[in-house]
Amino acid sequence: MKTLFDCQQLDAQDPLRSLRTHFSLPEGVIYLDGNSLGVLPKTAAARVAEVVTQEWGQGLIRSWNSAGWFSLPQRLGDKIAALIGADAGEVVATDSTSINLYKVLSAALNIAAQDVPQRKTIVSERSNFPTDLYIAEALCQERGYHLQLVEPEAIAASLTDQVAVLMLTHVNYRTGAMHDMAALTALAHQQGTLTVWDLAHSAGAVPVALKAAGADFAIGCGYKYLNGGPGAPAFVWVNPLHTERFWQPLAGWWGHATPFEFTPNYRPAPGIGRYLCGTQPILSMAALECGLDVFSAAQALGGMAALRTKSLALTDLFIELVEQRCRGHGLGLATPKAHDQRGSQVCLTREHAKQTGESSGAFAIVQALIARGVIGDFRAGDGNKHKDILRFGFTPLYVGFEDVWHAVEHLKQVLESGEWQRPEFNQKHSVT
Amino acid sequence: MKTLFDCQQLDAQDPLRSLRTHFSLPEGVIYLDGNSLGVLPKTAAARVAEVVTQEWGQGLIRSWNSAGWFSLPQRLGDKIAALIGADAGEVVATDSTSINLYKVLSAALNIAAQDVPQRKTIVSERSNFPTDLYIAEALCQERGYHLQLVEPEAIAASLTDQVAVLMLTHVNYRTGAMHDMAALTALAHQQGTLTVWDLAHSAGAVPVALKAAGADFAIGCGYKYLNGGPGAPAFVWVNPLHTERFWQPLAGWWGHATPFEFTPNYRPAPGIGRYLCGTQPILSMAALECGLDVFSAAQALGGMAALRTKSLALTDLFIELVEQRCRGHGLGLATPKAHDQRGSQVCLTREHAKQTGESSGAFAIVQALIARGVIGDFRAGDGNKHKDILRFGFTPLYVGFEDVWHAVEHLKQVLESGEWQRPEFNQKHSVT
Repeated sequence: MKTLFDCQQLDAQDPLRSLRTHFSLPEGVIYLDGNSLGVLPKTAAARVAEVVTQEWGQGLIRSWNSAGWFSLPQRLGDKIAALIGADAGEVVATDSTSINLYKVLSAALNIAAQDVPQRKTIVSERSNFPTDLYIAEALCQERGYHLQLVEPEAIAASLTDQVAVLMLTHVNYRTGAMHDMAALTALAHQQGTLTVWDLAHSAGAVPVALKAAGADFAIGCGYKYLNGGPGAPAFVWVNPLHTERFWQPLAGWWGHATPFEFTPNYRPAPGIGRYLCGTQPILSMAALECGLDVFSAAQALGGMAALRTKSLALTDLFIELVEQRCRGHGLGLATPKAHDQRGSQVCLTREHAKQTGESSGAFAIVQALIARGVIGDFRAGDGNKHKDILRFGFTPLYVGFEDVWHAVEHLKQVLESGEWQRPEFNQKHSVT
Repeated sequence: MKTLFDCQQLDAQDPLRSLRTHFSLPEGVIYLDGNSLGVLPKTAAARVAEVVTQEWGQGLIRSWNSAGWFSLPQRLGDKIAALIGADAGEVVATDSTSINLYKVLSAALNIAAQDVPQRKTIVSERSNFPTDLYIAEALCQERGYHLQLVEPEAIAASLTDQVAVLMLTHVNYRTGAMHDMAALTALAHQQGTLTVWDLAHSAGAVPVALKAAGADFAIGCGYKYLNGGPGAPAFVWVNPLHTERFWQPLAGWWGHATPFEFTPNYRPAPGIGRYLCGTQPILSMAALECGLDVFSAAQALGGMAALRTKSLALTDLFIELVEQRCRGHGLGLATPKAHDQRGSQVCLTREHAKQTGESSGAFAIVQALIARGVIGDFRAGDGNKHKDILRFGFTPLYVGFEDVWHAVEHLKQVLESGEWQRPEFNQKHSVT
């Protein structure tokens, strides 16, 4: 059985321990919600202040060129590419994840309409992140497609020769379960089906090999494991095989081949540049770059492979300690124990006490933990197959093994004391 | 003939003079490009720093509620509504102008397809801002519509019973010419045609009365006359008559009726909330609010009506001084002299010397002015009907009458000395 001392030893031996110093962590907080909003890189405050007071305040319009604002989507895109198994020049940082999904799903449907015009189905996972399903639903409605939602274990069987696009989130937001991107992409391609991957809970969290897997399209989030700040721009990658086959529908000036000729007709930029649309929020872009630059420091210490090793050690430890120390309180494990099926988060379930009509208590337990400075989050179940979830993200850049010990100790105390039953822990709010 | 002393007197008598103190203006700069990127409000640096270090750094995920991040699109939208003749609750600040145009134009086409299904034409102005035309072109291609581009004087005649949507930019980016929104909207409605107005060069610059005009949809920009900072979020307004008739296609989580129920099916939020899509860039949102708050201070001094009076006095003065002091250098006036047809900018033309194949010199003249600290911008002509343009924006919040005098004096010196012909003033770049 592991002790606090063991956890302290793991930190002392952690080759990535120094990366934590790149972040401002609030005093008294154990932050296990980096899968929702990553923490503040120490360089961000000064960098954003420089953009505000110097680049905007003094440089004004001239900063589009002199401060390199124009090249931000590509410059940040190249840094993201290195984390997701794509090449430089293939990724742009821009817009939101939802909007980027609209772009790539629309492009995928355009390609499918040309190559396999009789196919009218998009397959996704029923517990995919809802915004992905909403965007797909809207596109399906608009273009006469059908969105088929299946359970994860039914994905392979659903890949018939009627499926135009397989759209999946690589790591599930509710459970932390990770798909085998290479295997599912290969299976989809055997049927002539295109793949769209949402890397919201993958980029910066687990190694991703888009090109090696032969994936077709990918999008992802800038403010979770990439630590880009609240609402940081998202990113989009398109396999070079497809990039220039079609326009994406959000054909704005920044995606034009020669935007400053002000031609009345659209002519898409070559390459991934055509996935840009309108003017990007430069302050938020600048903060995102600070988040990405920590990964350069991580590169010297082994990069994503080393981060993955630590992430698995953290989540293994959390699972082990919860199983040992929190028994008898109705907790279950929603996250797979197999390493190759796990992202960088651990999700615990709590049973609804259906016979009494009581809630699962999961929400209140999370609130009681937050009051103690242990920040995770709650995701509601459907009262049916999907149970209520207590979700804990472990960002290996800044979470340590002693943090894991204390988080479980607090969880144990919250459960044993019954403090989660206090009324103040039942005021609902939450964010992905 | 006006003198420098006269201009100084105009500043001394200007009831809005104190508003200039709300902004950080770079030393030695006369900034006539607020129609491209507005200047820095003095409160923005501290406010953005607070968002970065406190709300993000310390509050982390909790700030979505505790710092009011969730209500930003509506809170800022209400402040914008007051400037454009809309009511509170009808506007959201979000995404980019191009993306918001896609949303409203798509919704307008949905309504037209139901109400007047045989109509397949969108009318716009040939010299509308290109990104608006690109977005319309992409939607037309996708949905089988035709984009008919006409000259401004031909708009009225083009409004036949075949036109589904009239899409116009209220104040033209190239010429500063302003359309009569009420008259064109009434004319369009007589034919059963919906109107979409781009207020990029209007919001905060000229009084806008969307509801009084009976307009159907409007979008606009946060970083021009609203001084929201580079790439600040844009805004979108929908006439309450239409808001709930259709989804817009970018159906992301933030536009869902109950986003935190995480339902697999989309159900649009009531009202303008459904025009939100994904997570918004909070740092850039915070800066935009600082820009908007200056208009609250302006409200006590007469608001948009007083700003309009000053704007017209500034542009009148600029036109008068250029005509008096810069004669004989091939300059023309692209902006209408009639007040009711003028926005808050003055655009000068310069003839191409076609016979010699020489350029108009307009680009180099603008560069020479910038080198002297007088920042305007250049817009290329088409070598045909549209001449090269020297564009000068007059933001009445911070531009003074003495600025106008000095700007014209520099222009005079640049033209008379021939310094614009130096090779260093011919390196091309520009941004809207």
